[in-house]
Amino acid sequence: MSISPVAGMSLDRFWATIESSAKIGEGRPGGLARLTLSDADRQMRDQFVVWCKDAGLRVTVDEVGSIFARREGANAEAHPILIGSHLDTQINGGRYDGIAGVLAGLELCRTLDDLDYRTERPIEIVNWTNEEGCRYSPPMVASGCFVGAYSPEWVHERIGDDGSRFGTELEKIGYRGIIPCVPRSVDAYFELHIEQGPLLHAEGCEVGVVTGGFPSHGMLARFAGETAHTGPWPMELRRNALAAGARWLSAVDDLGMEYAGTGGKATAARLAAWPNKPGILSDTADAVCDVRHGDPSTTKVMAERMRRSLFEAAARNGCEVEILDEWLWGGDIFDPTLIASVRQHAGRLGYRWRNIVSQAGHDAYFMARHCPTAMVFTPCRGGITHNNREHCEPDDFRAGLDVLLHAVVERADRSE
Amino acid sequence: MSISPVAGMSLDRFWATIESSAKIGEGRPGGLARLTLSDADRQMRDQFVVWCKDAGLRVTVDEVGSIFARREGANAEAHPILIGSHLDTQINGGRYDGIAGVLAGLELCRTLDDLDYRTERPIEIVNWTNEEGCRYSPPMVASGCFVGAYSPEWVHERIGDDGSRFGTELEKIGYRGIIPCVPRSVDAYFELHIEQGPLLHAEGCEVGVVTGGFPSHGMLARFAGETAHTGPWPMELRRNALAAGARWLSAVDDLGMEYAGTGGKATAARLAAWPNKPGILSDTADAVCDVRHGDPSTTKVMAERMRRSLFEAAARNGCEVEILDEWLWGGDIFDPTLIASVRQHAGRLGYRWRNIVSQAGHDAYFMARHCPTAMVFTPCRGGITHNNREHCEPDDFRAGLDVLLHAVVERADRSE
Repeated sequence: MSISPVAGMSLDRFWATIESSAKIGEGRPGGLARLTLSDADRQMRDQFVVWCKDAGLRVTVDEVGSIFARREGANAEAHPILIGSHLDTQINGGRYDGIAGVLAGLELCRTLDDLDYRTERPIEIVNWTNEEGCRYSPPMVASGCFVGAYSPEWVHERIGDDGSRFGTELEKIGYRGIIPCVPRSVDAYFELHIEQGPLLHAEGCEVGVVTGGFPSHGMLARFAGETAHTGPWPMELRRNALAAGARWLSAVDDLGMEYAGTGGKATAARLAAWPNKPGILSDTADAVCDVRHGDPSTTKVMAERMRRSLFEAAARNGCEVEILDEWLWGGDIFDPTLIASVRQHAGRLGYRWRNIVSQAGHDAYFMARHCPTAMVFTPCRGGITHNNREHCEPDDFRAGLDVLLHAVVERADRSE
Repeated sequence: MSISPVAGMSLDRFWATIESSAKIGEGRPGGLARLTLSDADRQMRDQFVVWCKDAGLRVTVDEVGSIFARREGANAEAHPILIGSHLDTQINGGRYDGIAGVLAGLELCRTLDDLDYRTERPIEIVNWTNEEGCRYSPPMVASGCFVGAYSPEWVHERIGDDGSRFGTELEKIGYRGIIPCVPRSVDAYFELHIEQGPLLHAEGCEVGVVTGGFPSHGMLARFAGETAHTGPWPMELRRNALAAGARWLSAVDDLGMEYAGTGGKATAARLAAWPNKPGILSDTADAVCDVRHGDPSTTKVMAERMRRSLFEAAARNGCEVEILDEWLWGGDIFDPTLIASVRQHAGRLGYRWRNIVSQAGHDAYFMARHCPTAMVFTPCRGGITHNNREHCEPDDFRAGLDVLLHAVVERADRSE
């Protein structure tokens, strides 16, 4: 037996849960500022745990704060299907980015309860800590730790711009769990997410079948110069790290403009200099930039030009520069069988769907290194996100939720 | 009667006082971080007040925290001669920038006591609050208030990068005085300061006769854009305020390079964007730049190019920009009679002197709007300043102190 091929989730219940969550961590009008490990994050986690327990799920927390809520399978020994995303938001974040994927997992479990249906394999909903990377760099640090890319100790030592330490804040909000954060066997990972781009909405598609990630390449660099007086100190002796950093960001932004015609992007994302004051040259500047292009070889060219402009900027301003971190995302990382299943259910249920690549980073990128992974995208108005004007209607989620339900159940029940 | 034409100050006592002050607010090795209205500033003020009272001076504090220590004149009704500078430092500051001028005033009063000499006019030593502008913008805010450029209420409302309010911190350290900070009659203002440039040291000159200020023109601008996701959001729709700010700073730095051959400078001094995080475009960026050139008409050209590049940067990145503040310094602002007096005493005492223009901003710039003003420069090694490697030897101050003594006494005793 299985669920009815036309079974669907309760959109009303899902939406009511979303609406309720949007009261926690309010930011600019209509938006959220639910920063990782803040009080608002704790409140949201507490509420999520209550909802999970009400749904009869068993909740555990790992040592970097990720929350797992398990619905047992008929075969308790089988590796679980994970469904998840994140509850945290950017500082000027919206109401759907992240949490929609977590609550989709919750609604899926509630739906199976309504149907009185037990899948063969267990299902676990997961909330990954600090997906956004807004308070602590890097982003997606908890899913990275889960798949072995980072150690839990390293994660705990991350320091935010506010001087706070990840591990200390995690304990303070009561979410330093006892479960070790180490790779464990997972049958598959599903993540539903709003598209964060304009395509589905513009084309009237109800669901996006995510075929891969937009290739992207990012760098965190540190410029080192020397403080001096901004008045008398001669230009030729200056080693102004802020000027070097500004030069790099400006060059990267130019690069983005140059490739805009073919959909490329280059982002001047962050520049933090010290002392960064009138009257004194800065001796340190940390800068973050990245490049993205649909064509992997173009991304590679853009990345090389970003790298060259980094060293040119440092040299021009007499500074030293070091690349402290570098990351590559995207490509054909998702599982062909799962992609096919998502596509097949979308078509079978009569929803308007399209293939799409993800342009943003997601925890699914890390999970794809670890187990078969798929993403399901839902429309958002104008593609606006990381902004309080991010907007979705309830109907925007109908197709995504139903497709997720059937793809997950199919995976959970498959015979090997 | 007057003092002996070869009278001098006690270099040993002056140096011992400097050395003692350098223990308050220690920063990087050898340097100071005595930020305005910090605990270290309070300690330094307390110590300075003790020294002044030990010297029999009458201490008053005005409502923006400036400290005046008065040595009465034979004619108590006469307008006083002010001698001063500042006790605060940059965050990576040195041991002489500012405080040397305040303690030179103190040593002058001590010397007159040793000589049992009373000048005709009163003498007042002054410590101006927040000369550096390192914690609160703008710099030189208290001398500006004293001459009527700012209101005390406006000064109190300044907010630092640490979120602190000037007025609140001033009360916290106990230096919100009761004397109104309004323009009052002053006979003349003298300020001794280390050169903060390499000329005196390089040419073996013992004292600099400051003839004017290096013309400079600064701007504080605010760029306004919109947050969005750094991944999917198309380049042509982006309004990244950080990129606009970086573009401006980079253009201004280029301008400085272009005029370096004729001693011009252009400084990319500050860039503070929000949210300034990976993953999200910034919607606000505050930036400070300035240009300086010995030739006033060239400074004007540079300033116009700085202004044009500001609007170009904003336009290129789809941002709005507003100039929140703009300041012009320098020119022939000092008093010819006082300059001639300083020069004459330097020559008469047999010191190696040269005419020099000030390249840095000083409280004397504001005071020159209000009363006859002169500055005396002393050498500092390599011209290095706003850096913990700022360095002077006791002998570097001998000529400056002696010249100051005679120029001040001449002014204080003159018959009109």
